[in-house]
Amino acid sequence: MTYDDTNVFAKILRGELPAHTVYETEHVLAFMDIMPRGDGHTLVIPKVKARNIFDVEPDALAELMKAVQVVARASKQAFEADGVTVQQFNESAGGQVVFHLHVHVIPRFEGVPLRPHTGDLARSDVLAAQAEKLRRALASA
Amino acid sequence: MTYDDTNVFAKILRGELPAHTVYETEHVLAFMDIMPRGDGHTLVIPKVKARNIFDVEPDALAELMKAVQVVARASKQAFEADGVTVQQFNESAGGQVVFHLHVHVIPRFEGVPLRPHTGDLARSDVLAAQAEKLRRALASA
Repeated sequence: MTYDDTNVFAKILRGELPAHTVYETEHVLAFMDIMPRGDGHTLVIPKVKARNIFDVEPDALAELMKAVQVVARASKQAFEADGVTVQQFNESAGGQVVFHLHVHVIPRFEGVPLRPHTGDLARSDVLAAQAEKLRRALASA
Repeated sequence: MTYDDTNVFAKILRGELPAHTVYETEHVLAFMDIMPRGDGHTLVIPKVKARNIFDVEPDALAELMKAVQVVARASKQAFEADGVTVQQFNESAGGQVVFHLHVHVIPRFEGVPLRPHTGDLARSDVLAAQAEKLRRALASA
C-alpha cells in the first residue's frame, strides 16, 4: 500500500482545502471532523506522509500520540465531557476512509452513544464554535 | 480520578492473574483480550500505573504506541487481516471498563463487523492458539 497525496487530509495540510483547525505543531495538525460522530469530534494527523499505522515512522507516531493526548485533555475540558473515545482505523476493512494516518478524538457524555457514520456534514457554524471553544482550552493548557 | 491498582490489568502485570501474553518489553505488555470483538483482538498496556490517556506520562504513551504499531503489523500478518482497528477508551462514558490504560488492536476482515461487547469469554484454547500465531509473527518481525 502506498501513500496517495491527493487525499483530502493532504490537501488540508497543503492549504488546498479549508478546515476548522484547533491545534498545530511542527509535527501535527488537528481540526474538527466534518462528519462528527459526537459533538467536538476532532482529528489529529501527522504532517509526514503516512497512509496509516503500518507505514508511519515510530517517532512520528509517538509525536502524533502526544498531540492526541493534548487534544483529548483539552476536549474533555472544553466540552465538559465525561470521557473521550480515541479511534484509529487502518485500511478499509479497519474502518479507514481517508488514506492519510489520522486519530479520532471524540468527547463522550454519559448515556450518549456515538452517532452512526452517515456521511452527513455538520454545519460549518457549529464546527466553528466548537473549534473556538477547543482552541481556548488548548491555549490555556 | 486516581489509579486503583486492584484492577485486573494491574493483577496481570503483577502475575496475580494469567494472560495469553504475546509481547513484552521494558515498557509494555500485550496479551489477548478475553472478550474479543474480533479474532486476534489484542490489548497493549504500559507497565507504568496510568488510569488512561489523561494521566499517563507523554513518553510512556509514546512507548505504548510504538508497541501498538509492532503488534498491529504482526496481527495483520499473523491473521492475514485486511485491516486493523485501534481503539482506546477513557473513562466509563468513553467506553473504558478496566481502569489501567490500554489500547485495543483488532484485526479486521472485509465484510466482517466488530462483534458486540457481550461480556462472553472466549475459549482459552482458541486464545492460546491465536497467541501462539501472533508470537510467531512478532518473533519474525
